[in-house]
Amino acid sequence: MQSNTSHISIVLCRPQFAGNVGAAARCGKNMGIGRLVVVGKPNLDQDEMYRRATHVAAEVIDGIRYVDNLEAALADFQYIVGTTARLGGARGPVVSPREMAEKVSGISQENRVALLFGPEDAGLTNDELRFCHLVVNIPTAEFKSLNLSHAVMILCYEIFSCRLSTEGRFVSKLASSQELEGMYGQVAELLVRIGFLNSQNPEYWMMHIRRLLSRTGLHSKEVKIIRGICRQMDWFLESRGKEDKKT
Amino acid sequence: MQSNTSHISIVLCRPQFAGNVGAAARCGKNMGIGRLVVVGKPNLDQDEMYRRATHVAAEVIDGIRYVDNLEAALADFQYIVGTTARLGGARGPVVSPREMAEKVSGISQENRVALLFGPEDAGLTNDELRFCHLVVNIPTAEFKSLNLSHAVMILCYEIFSCRLSTEGRFVSKLASSQELEGMYGQVAELLVRIGFLNSQNPEYWMMHIRRLLSRTGLHSKEVKIIRGICRQMDWFLESRGKEDKKT
Repeated sequence: MQSNTSHISIVLCRPQFAGNVGAAARCGKNMGIGRLVVVGKPNLDQDEMYRRATHVAAEVIDGIRYVDNLEAALADFQYIVGTTARLGGARGPVVSPREMAEKVSGISQENRVALLFGPEDAGLTNDELRFCHLVVNIPTAEFKSLNLSHAVMILCYEIFSCRLSTEGRFVSKLASSQELEGMYGQVAELLVRIGFLNSQNPEYWMMHIRRLLSRTGLHSKEVKIIRGICRQMDWFLESRGKEDKKT
Repeated sequence: MQSNTSHISIVLCRPQFAGNVGAAARCGKNMGIGRLVVVGKPNLDQDEMYRRATHVAAEVIDGIRYVDNLEAALADFQYIVGTTARLGGARGPVVSPREMAEKVSGISQENRVALLFGPEDAGLTNDELRFCHLVVNIPTAEFKSLNLSHAVMILCYEIFSCRLSTEGRFVSKLASSQELEGMYGQVAELLVRIGFLNSQNPEYWMMHIRRLLSRTGLHSKEVKIIRGICRQMDWFLESRGKEDKKT
Protein backbone atom coordinates (compact mmCIF):
# COMPACT_ATOMS: atom_id res chain seq x y z
CA MET A 1 0.00 0.00 0.00
CA GLN A 2 1.11 3.52 -0.75
CA SER A 3 2.10 5.59 2.28
CA ASN A 4 0.37 8.92 2.55
CA THR A 5 3.55 10.98 2.71
CA SER A 6 1.62 14.19 3.36
CA HIS A 7 0.85 12.66 6.77
CA ILE A 8 4.52 12.00 7.55
CA SER A 9 6.97 14.41 9.23
CA ILE A 10 10.67 14.23 9.96
CA VAL A 11 11.33 15.31 13.56
CA LEU A 12 14.93 16.18 14.45
CA CYS A 13 15.51 16.32 18.20
CA ARG A 14 18.28 18.75 19.25
CA PRO A 15 20.31 18.59 16.02
CA GLN A 16 23.78 20.11 16.36
CA PHE A 17 24.79 20.79 12.78
CA ALA A 18 22.92 23.02 10.36
CA GLY A 19 24.34 21.03 7.45
CA ASN A 20 22.59 17.90 8.65
CA VAL A 21 19.25 19.70 8.96
CA GLY A 22 19.62 21.02 5.42
CA ALA A 23 20.64 17.61 4.09
CA ALA A 24 17.70 15.98 5.91
CA ALA A 25 15.33 18.46 4.24
CA ARG A 26 16.75 17.49 0.85
CA CYS A 27 16.39 13.76 1.63
CA GLY A 28 12.77 14.27 2.65
CA LYS A 29 12.06 16.22 -0.50
CA ASN A 30 13.71 13.51 -2.61
CA MET A 31 11.32 10.98 -1.14
CA GLY A 32 8.16 13.08 -1.07
CA ILE A 33 8.23 13.98 2.63
CA GLY A 34 8.07 17.76 2.93
CA ARG A 35 7.43 18.41 6.63
CA LEU A 36 10.29 19.02 9.04
CA VAL A 37 10.14 19.71 12.79
CA VAL A 38 13.18 20.83 14.79
CA VAL A 39 13.10 20.37 18.56
CA GLY A 40 15.11 22.28 21.17
CA LYS A 41 15.85 25.72 19.72
CA PRO A 42 19.28 24.91 18.42
CA ASN A 43 21.40 27.74 17.08
CA LEU A 44 21.67 26.77 13.41
CA ASP A 45 23.64 28.54 10.69
CA GLN A 46 20.89 29.49 8.23
CA ASP A 47 23.21 29.80 5.20
CA GLU A 48 24.67 26.35 5.70
CA MET A 49 21.17 24.90 6.17
CA TYR A 50 19.87 26.37 2.90
CA ARG A 51 23.05 25.46 1.04
CA ARG A 52 22.82 21.79 1.91
CA ALA A 53 19.08 21.70 1.29
CA THR A 54 19.66 23.03 -2.28
CA HIS A 55 17.17 25.48 -3.73
CA VAL A 56 14.58 22.78 -4.41
CA ALA A 57 14.21 21.93 -0.72
CA ALA A 58 14.47 25.57 0.41
CA GLU A 59 10.70 25.56 0.95
CA VAL A 60 11.12 22.70 3.42
CA ILE A 61 13.57 24.85 5.41
CA ASP A 62 11.20 27.83 5.16
CA GLY A 63 8.44 25.66 6.59
CA ILE A 64 10.37 24.14 9.52
CA ARG A 65 8.29 24.05 12.69
CA TYR A 66 10.56 24.93 15.64
CA VAL A 67 9.37 23.58 18.99
CA ASP A 68 10.97 23.98 22.41
CA ASN A 69 10.42 20.55 23.83
CA LEU A 70 9.83 17.07 22.50
CA GLU A 71 6.53 16.42 24.23
CA ALA A 72 4.98 19.49 22.58
CA ALA A 73 6.54 18.65 19.24
CA LEU A 74 5.01 15.19 19.23
CA ALA A 75 1.63 16.08 20.72
CA ASP A 76 -0.34 16.00 17.47
CA PHE A 77 1.15 12.85 16.03
CA GLN A 78 -0.69 9.56 16.21
CA TYR A 79 2.22 7.28 15.47
CA ILE A 80 5.84 7.92 16.38
CA VAL A 81 8.75 6.00 14.93
CA GLY A 82 12.01 6.38 16.89
CA THR A 83 15.50 5.52 15.76
CA THR A 84 18.38 4.02 17.72
CA ALA A 85 21.85 2.81 16.93
CA ARG A 86 22.09 1.04 20.27
CA LEU A 87 20.42 -2.26 21.02
CA GLY A 88 19.67 -3.87 24.33
CA GLY A 89 17.03 -4.73 26.84
CA ALA A 90 16.43 -1.17 27.95
CA ARG A 91 15.42 -0.22 24.45
CA GLY A 92 12.90 -2.98 23.90
CA PRO A 93 12.26 -4.72 20.62
CA VAL A 94 13.39 -2.98 17.45
CA VAL A 95 12.41 -3.49 13.83
CA SER A 96 14.26 -3.00 10.55
CA PRO A 97 13.60 0.05 8.33
CA ARG A 98 11.75 -2.22 5.92
CA GLU A 99 9.39 -3.58 8.57
CA MET A 100 8.81 -0.01 9.72
CA ALA A 101 7.92 1.08 6.17
CA GLU A 102 5.36 -1.70 5.82
CA LYS A 103 3.72 -0.67 9.06
CA VAL A 104 3.75 3.03 8.20
CA SER A 105 2.25 2.49 4.76
CA GLY A 106 -1.00 1.41 6.37
CA ILE A 107 -0.97 3.63 9.42
CA SER A 108 -0.18 6.82 7.49
CA GLN A 109 -3.43 6.56 5.56
CA GLU A 110 -5.41 7.88 8.48
CA ASN A 111 -2.79 9.06 10.95
CA ARG A 112 -0.06 11.62 11.35
CA VAL A 113 3.29 9.86 11.62
CA ALA A 114 6.55 11.28 13.05
CA LEU A 115 9.97 9.90 12.15
CA LEU A 116 12.03 10.88 15.18
CA PHE A 117 15.83 11.23 15.16
CA GLY A 118 18.13 12.13 18.04
CA PRO A 119 21.16 14.43 18.12
CA GLU A 120 24.30 13.49 16.18
CA ASP A 121 26.51 12.64 19.16
CA ALA A 122 24.29 10.55 21.41
CA GLY A 123 21.01 9.72 19.68
CA LEU A 124 17.68 9.58 21.49
CA THR A 125 17.73 8.94 25.23
CA ASN A 126 15.69 6.13 26.75
CA ASP A 127 13.36 8.82 28.05
CA GLU A 128 12.79 10.18 24.59
CA LEU A 129 12.34 6.73 23.08
CA ARG A 130 9.42 6.17 25.42
CA PHE A 131 7.25 8.36 23.19
CA CYS A 132 7.73 5.97 20.33
CA HIS A 133 5.26 3.40 19.07
CA LEU A 134 7.96 1.66 17.15
CA VAL A 135 11.76 1.75 17.36
CA VAL A 136 13.88 1.21 14.27
CA ASN A 137 17.47 0.11 14.12
CA ILE A 138 19.32 0.56 10.84
CA PRO A 139 21.48 -2.51 10.30
CA THR A 140 25.19 -1.73 9.97
CA ALA A 141 28.60 -3.35 9.95
CA GLU A 142 30.83 -2.77 13.02
CA PHE A 143 30.87 1.00 12.52
CA LYS A 144 27.37 1.84 13.75
CA SER A 145 27.45 5.62 13.77
CA LEU A 146 25.53 6.89 10.77
CA ASN A 147 25.51 10.53 9.83
CA LEU A 148 22.11 11.95 10.86
CA SER A 149 20.99 12.84 7.33
CA HIS A 150 21.95 9.39 6.06
CA ALA A 151 19.76 7.80 8.71
CA VAL A 152 16.95 10.13 7.62
CA MET A 153 17.50 9.10 4.01
CA ILE A 154 17.29 5.38 4.73
CA LEU A 155 13.96 5.69 6.53
CA CYS A 156 12.46 8.02 3.91
CA TYR A 157 13.76 5.80 1.12
CA GLU A 158 12.18 2.71 2.67
CA ILE A 159 8.86 4.49 3.06
CA PHE A 160 8.95 5.73 -0.51
CA SER A 161 10.08 2.35 -1.92
CA CYS A 162 7.47 0.45 0.01
CA ARG A 163 4.74 2.26 -1.88
CA LEU A 164 6.55 1.60 -5.12
CA SER A 165 6.94 -2.11 -4.67
CA THR A 166 3.17 -2.47 -4.63
CA GLU A 167 2.78 -0.16 -7.61
CA GLY A 168 5.14 -2.34 -9.60
CA ARG A 169 7.00 0.54 -11.17
CA PHE A 170 10.04 -1.57 -11.94
CA VAL A 171 8.26 -4.51 -13.42
CA SER A 172 8.69 -4.08 -17.10
CA LYS A 173 7.31 -6.29 -19.78
CA LEU A 174 9.47 -9.12 -21.03
CA ALA A 175 9.38 -10.69 -24.46
CA SER A 176 6.98 -13.61 -24.85
CA SER A 177 8.14 -17.14 -25.48
CA GLN A 178 6.79 -16.81 -29.01
CA GLU A 179 8.92 -13.74 -29.65
CA LEU A 180 11.96 -15.52 -28.23
CA GLU A 181 11.49 -18.67 -30.28
CA GLY A 182 11.11 -16.64 -33.47
CA MET A 183 14.35 -14.89 -32.65
CA TYR A 184 16.28 -18.06 -31.83
CA GLY A 185 15.09 -19.67 -35.07
CA GLN A 186 16.37 -16.70 -37.05
CA VAL A 187 19.70 -16.64 -35.17
CA ALA A 188 20.24 -20.38 -35.73
CA GLU A 189 19.49 -20.07 -39.44
CA LEU A 190 22.02 -17.29 -39.84
CA LEU A 191 24.69 -19.11 -37.84
CA VAL A 192 24.24 -22.21 -39.98
CA ARG A 193 24.45 -20.06 -43.11
CA ILE A 194 27.79 -18.56 -42.14
CA GLY A 195 29.11 -21.91 -41.00
CA PHE A 196 29.32 -21.17 -37.26
CA LEU A 197 26.84 -23.93 -36.56
CA ASN A 198 26.93 -27.35 -38.15
CA SER A 199 23.56 -27.80 -39.86
CA GLN A 200 23.56 -31.48 -38.74
CA ASN A 201 23.81 -30.64 -35.06
CA PRO A 202 23.27 -26.97 -34.22
CA GLU A 203 21.92 -27.60 -30.75
CA TYR A 204 25.03 -27.63 -28.58
CA TRP A 205 26.12 -24.10 -29.34
CA MET A 206 22.57 -22.81 -29.66
CA MET A 207 21.94 -24.03 -26.13
CA HIS A 208 24.78 -21.82 -24.88
CA ILE A 209 23.48 -18.86 -26.86
CA ARG A 210 19.93 -19.37 -25.61
CA ARG A 211 21.15 -19.67 -22.06
CA LEU A 212 23.13 -16.46 -22.18
CA LEU A 213 20.38 -14.46 -23.85
CA SER A 214 17.45 -15.83 -21.88
CA ARG A 215 18.70 -15.66 -18.37
CA THR A 216 18.85 -11.90 -18.65
CA GLY A 217 15.09 -11.63 -19.33
CA LEU A 218 14.91 -10.01 -22.76
CA HIS A 219 12.51 -7.16 -23.49
CA SER A 220 10.51 -7.04 -26.72
CA LYS A 221 12.57 -4.14 -27.97
CA GLU A 222 15.77 -6.11 -27.46
CA VAL A 223 14.38 -9.10 -29.36
CA LYS A 224 13.67 -6.71 -32.23
CA ILE A 225 17.24 -5.38 -32.13
CA ILE A 226 18.69 -8.89 -32.36
CA ARG A 227 16.34 -9.82 -35.19
CA GLY A 228 17.23 -6.57 -36.93
CA ILE A 229 20.92 -7.46 -36.80
CA CYS A 230 20.22 -10.90 -38.29
CA ARG A 231 18.10 -9.37 -41.05
CA GLN A 232 20.78 -6.83 -41.85
CA MET A 233 23.36 -9.58 -41.98
CA ASP A 234 21.21 -11.59 -44.39
CA TRP A 235 20.60 -8.53 -46.52
CA PHE A 236 24.29 -7.72 -46.57
CA LEU A 237 25.24 -11.24 -47.62
CA GLU A 238 22.51 -11.21 -50.26
CA SER A 239 23.33 -7.81 -51.75
CA ARG A 240 27.03 -8.61 -51.76
CA GLY A 241 26.33 -11.78 -53.71
CA LYS A 242 24.37 -9.80 -56.28
CA GLU A 243 27.03 -7.13 -56.61
CA ASP A 244 29.70 -9.74 -57.07
CA LYS A 245 27.64 -11.42 -59.80
CA LYS A 246 27.28 -8.10 -61.62
CA THR A 247 31.02 -7.52 -61.86
CA MET B 1 23.32 -15.21 0.96
CA GLN B 2 25.03 -12.08 2.14
CA SER B 3 27.22 -10.16 -0.26
CA ASN B 4 30.96 -10.55 0.05
CA THR B 5 31.58 -6.89 0.76
CA SER B 6 35.36 -7.32 0.61
CA HIS B 7 34.85 -7.80 -3.15
CA ILE B 8 32.87 -4.59 -3.54
CA SER B 9 34.29 -1.12 -4.25
CA ILE B 10 32.69 2.30 -4.41
CA VAL B 11 33.95 4.13 -7.52
CA LEU B 12 33.37 7.89 -7.62
CA CYS B 13 33.81 9.33 -11.08
CA ARG B 14 35.02 12.95 -11.11
CA PRO B 15 33.54 13.98 -7.73
CA GLN B 16 33.53 17.73 -7.19
CA PHE B 17 33.19 18.07 -3.44
CA ALA B 18 35.59 16.65 -0.86
CA GLY B 19 32.76 16.51 1.68
CA ASN B 20 30.86 14.04 -0.46
CA VAL B 21 33.90 11.80 -0.86
CA GLY B 22 34.39 11.81 2.92
CA ALA B 23 30.70 11.12 3.55
CA ALA B 24 30.72 8.31 0.98
CA ALA B 25 33.68 6.73 2.79
CA ARG B 26 31.72 6.86 6.04
CA CYS B 27 28.62 5.31 4.38
CA GLY B 28 30.72 2.51 2.95
CA LYS B 29 32.30 1.87 6.34
CA ASN B 30 28.85 1.83 8.00
CA MET B 31 27.78 -0.90 5.61
CA GLY B 32 31.02 -2.90 5.55
CA ILE B 33 32.35 -1.66 2.21
CA GLY B 34 35.86 -0.34 2.76
CA ARG B 35 37.27 0.19 -0.74
CA LEU B 36 37.02 3.53 -2.47
CA VAL B 37 38.26 4.51 -5.93
CA VAL B 38 38.31 8.13 -7.13
CA VAL B 39 38.52 8.72 -10.88
CA GLY B 40 39.75 11.85 -12.64
CA LYS B 41 42.34 13.49 -10.36
CA PRO B 42 39.96 15.97 -8.75
CA ASN B 43 41.44 18.61 -6.50
CA LEU B 44 39.91 17.64 -3.16
CA ASP B 45 40.28 19.44 0.17
CA GLN B 46 41.89 16.76 2.34
CA ASP B 47 40.77 18.26 5.66
CA GLU B 48 37.13 18.38 4.60
CA MET B 49 37.34 14.83 3.30
CA TYR B 50 38.73 13.47 6.59
CA ARG B 51 36.30 15.56 8.65
CA ARG B 52 33.23 14.16 6.94
CA ALA B 53 34.59 10.62 6.94
CA THR B 54 35.02 10.82 10.76
CA HIS B 55 38.02 9.14 12.36
CA VAL B 56 36.56 5.67 11.98
CA ALA B 57 36.50 5.88 8.20
CA ALA B 58 39.84 7.72 7.98
CA GLU B 59 41.48 4.47 6.89
CA VAL B 60 39.11 4.34 3.91
CA ILE B 61 40.32 7.80 2.87
CA ASP B 62 43.95 6.73 3.43
CA GLY B 63 43.38 3.79 1.12
CA ILE B 64 41.64 5.63 -1.74
CA ARG B 65 42.90 4.47 -5.13
CA TYR B 66 43.18 7.49 -7.42
CA VAL B 67 42.99 6.70 -11.14
CA ASP B 68 43.18 9.09 -14.09
CA ASN B 69 40.58 7.58 -16.36
CA LEU B 70 37.49 5.46 -15.95
CA GLU B 71 38.47 2.64 -18.27
CA ALA B 72 41.64 2.00 -16.27
CA ALA B 73 39.76 2.29 -12.99
CA LEU B 74 37.27 -0.38 -14.05
CA ALA B 75 39.60 -2.74 -15.91
CA ASP B 76 39.86 -5.32 -13.13
CA PHE B 77 36.22 -5.42 -12.11
CA GLN B 78 34.01 -8.22 -13.33
CA TYR B 79 30.66 -6.60 -12.59
CA ILE B 80 29.94 -2.90 -12.77
CA VAL B 81 26.81 -1.31 -11.36
CA GLY B 82 26.10 2.20 -12.66
CA THR B 83 23.71 4.76 -11.26
CA THR B 84 21.49 7.23 -13.07
CA ALA B 85 18.83 9.72 -12.05
CA ARG B 86 17.62 10.08 -15.62
CA LEU B 87 15.45 7.55 -17.34
CA GLY B 88 14.73 7.15 -21.01
CA GLY B 89 15.40 5.17 -24.14
CA ALA B 90 19.01 6.20 -24.49
CA ARG B 91 19.79 4.73 -21.06
CA GLY B 92 18.20 1.34 -21.55
CA PRO B 93 16.49 -0.72 -18.85
CA VAL B 94 17.15 0.10 -15.19
CA VAL B 95 16.58 -1.82 -11.95
CA SER B 96 15.77 -0.75 -8.40
CA PRO B 97 18.45 -0.73 -5.68
CA ARG B 98 16.83 -3.81 -4.17
CA GLU B 99 16.98 -5.82 -7.37
CA MET B 100 20.59 -4.72 -7.74
CA ALA B 101 21.40 -5.94 -4.22
CA GLU B 102 19.92 -9.35 -4.91
CA LYS B 103 22.03 -9.68 -8.01
CA VAL B 104 25.21 -8.47 -6.31
CA SER B 105 24.82 -10.76 -3.32
CA GLY B 106 25.44 -13.75 -5.55
CA ILE B 107 27.88 -12.23 -7.99
CA SER B 108 30.13 -10.71 -5.31
CA GLN B 109 30.94 -14.17 -3.93
CA GLU B 110 33.42 -14.82 -6.72
CA ASN B 111 33.74 -11.50 -8.56
CA ARG B 112 34.98 -7.98 -8.03
CA VAL B 113 32.05 -5.57 -8.12
CA ALA B 114 32.20 -1.79 -8.70
CA LEU B 115 29.42 0.57 -7.61
CA LEU B 116 29.92 3.49 -9.98
CA PHE B 117 28.66 7.02 -9.29
CA GLY B 118 28.96 10.11 -11.49
CA PRO B 119 29.78 13.71 -10.56
CA GLU B 120 27.34 15.71 -8.45
CA ASP B 121 26.12 18.07 -11.14
CA ALA B 122 25.51 15.82 -14.11
CA GLY B 123 25.87 12.19 -13.14
CA LEU B 124 27.38 9.57 -15.42
CA THR B 125 27.37 10.28 -19.13
CA ASN B 126 25.93 7.78 -21.59
CA ASP B 127 29.51 7.03 -22.57
CA GLU B 128 30.41 6.17 -18.99
CA LEU B 129 27.27 4.10 -18.48
CA ARG B 130 28.36 1.89 -21.36
CA PHE B 131 30.80 0.12 -19.02
CA CYS B 132 28.00 -0.99 -16.74
CA HIS B 133 26.49 -4.46 -16.52
CA LEU B 134 23.53 -3.12 -14.63
CA VAL B 135 22.11 0.36 -14.23
CA VAL B 136 20.28 1.34 -11.06
CA ASN B 137 17.79 4.14 -10.62
CA ILE B 138 16.95 5.17 -7.08
CA PRO B 139 13.21 5.84 -6.96
CA THR B 140 12.34 9.38 -5.89
CA ALA B 141 9.47 11.82 -5.73
CA GLU B 142 9.50 14.74 -8.17
CA PHE B 143 12.81 16.06 -6.79
CA LYS B 144 15.19 13.54 -8.34
CA SER B 145 18.55 15.03 -7.47
CA LEU B 146 20.05 13.07 -4.57
CA ASN B 147 23.20 14.19 -2.84
CA LEU B 148 26.03 11.92 -4.01
CA SER B 149 26.76 10.43 -0.59
CA HIS B 150 23.05 9.68 -0.03
CA ALA B 151 22.94 7.75 -3.28
CA VAL B 152 26.03 5.85 -2.13
CA MET B 153 24.33 5.12 1.19
CA ILE B 154 21.18 3.70 -0.39
CA LEU B 155 23.10 1.27 -2.56
CA CYS B 156 25.42 0.20 0.27
CA TYR B 157 22.47 -0.16 2.65
CA GLU B 158 20.56 -2.36 0.21
CA ILE B 159 23.62 -4.54 -0.31
CA PHE B 160 24.16 -4.87 3.43
CA SER B 161 20.49 -5.56 4.13
CA CYS B 162 20.06 -8.14 1.42
CA ARG B 163 20.23 -11.73 2.39
CA LEU B 164 19.33 -13.83 -0.57
CA SER B 165 17.25 -16.87 0.19
CA THR B 166 18.82 -18.96 -2.54
CA GLU B 167 21.57 -20.26 -0.27
CA GLY B 168 24.33 -22.11 -2.02
CA ARG B 169 23.26 -20.99 -5.48
CA PHE B 170 25.90 -21.78 -8.09
CA VAL B 171 28.05 -18.76 -8.68
CA SER B 172 30.62 -18.87 -11.40
CA LYS B 173 33.30 -16.54 -12.56
CA LEU B 174 32.32 -13.71 -14.88
CA ALA B 175 34.29 -12.11 -17.71
CA SER B 176 36.38 -9.08 -16.75
CA SER B 177 35.65 -5.59 -18.01
CA GLN B 178 38.70 -5.90 -20.25
CA GLU B 179 37.37 -9.08 -21.88
CA LEU B 180 33.99 -7.42 -22.37
CA GLU B 181 35.43 -4.27 -23.92
CA GLY B 182 37.43 -6.35 -26.38
CA MET B 183 34.26 -8.21 -27.35
CA TYR B 184 32.15 -5.05 -27.72
CA GLY B 185 34.82 -3.49 -29.90
CA GLN B 186 34.75 -6.51 -32.19
CA VAL B 187 30.94 -6.61 -32.27
CA ALA B 188 30.73 -2.89 -33.10
CA GLU B 189 33.27 -3.26 -35.90
CA LEU B 190 31.29 -6.07 -37.47
CA LEU B 191 27.98 -4.26 -37.14
CA VAL B 192 29.46 -1.18 -38.79
CA ARG B 193 30.88 -3.37 -41.54
CA ILE B 194 27.51 -4.89 -42.39
CA GLY B 195 25.80 -1.52 -42.15
CA PHE B 196 23.70 -2.25 -39.04
CA LEU B 197 25.47 0.55 -37.22
CA ASN B 198 26.22 3.92 -38.70
CA SER B 199 29.98 4.41 -38.44
CA GLN B 200 29.38 8.06 -37.56
CA ASN B 201 27.25 7.30 -34.53
CA PRO B 202 27.33 3.67 -33.46
CA GLU B 203 26.70 4.36 -29.80
CA TYR B 204 22.91 4.37 -29.48
CA TRP B 205 22.34 0.83 -30.64
CA MET B 206 25.58 -0.42 -29.10
CA MET B 207 24.33 0.82 -25.75
CA HIS B 208 21.25 -1.39 -26.04
CA ILE B 209 23.36 -4.35 -27.12
CA ARG B 210 25.80 -3.80 -24.26
CA ARG B 211 23.01 -3.57 -21.74
CA LEU B 212 21.24 -6.71 -22.87
CA LEU B 213 24.45 -8.73 -22.96
CA SER B 214 25.98 -7.36 -19.79
CA ARG B 215 23.13 -7.41 -17.35
CA THR B 216 23.04 -11.15 -17.61
CA GLY B 217 26.63 -11.37 -16.36
CA LEU B 218 28.60 -12.97 -19.20
CA HIS B 219 31.09 -15.73 -18.52
CA SER B 220 34.49 -15.87 -20.19
CA LYS B 221 33.37 -18.83 -22.26
CA GLU B 222 30.36 -16.90 -23.53
CA VAL B 223 32.51 -13.94 -24.49
CA LYS B 224 34.61 -16.39 -26.51
CA ILE B 225 31.49 -17.77 -28.23
CA ILE B 226 30.36 -14.29 -29.24
CA ARG B 227 33.83 -13.36 -30.49
CA GLY B 228 33.94 -16.67 -32.35
CA ILE B 229 30.70 -15.82 -34.14
CA CYS B 230 32.08 -12.41 -35.13
CA ARG B 231 35.31 -13.97 -36.38
CA GLN B 232 33.39 -16.56 -38.37
CA MET B 233 31.24 -13.83 -39.86
CA ASP B 234 34.33 -11.86 -40.86
CA TRP B 235 35.94 -14.93 -42.32
CA PHE B 236 32.79 -15.78 -44.23
CA LEU B 237 32.53 -12.28 -45.68
CA GLU B 238 36.24 -12.34 -46.54
CA SER B 239 36.30 -15.77 -48.18
CA ARG B 240 33.14 -15.00 -50.07
CA GLY B 241 34.77 -11.90 -51.48
CA LYS B 242 37.76 -13.98 -52.61
CA GLU B 243 35.62 -16.70 -54.15
CA ASP B 244 33.62 -14.12 -56.03
CA LYS B 245 36.81 -12.58 -57.36
CA LYS B 246 37.98 -15.96 -58.59
CA THR B 247 34.88 -16.57 -60.68
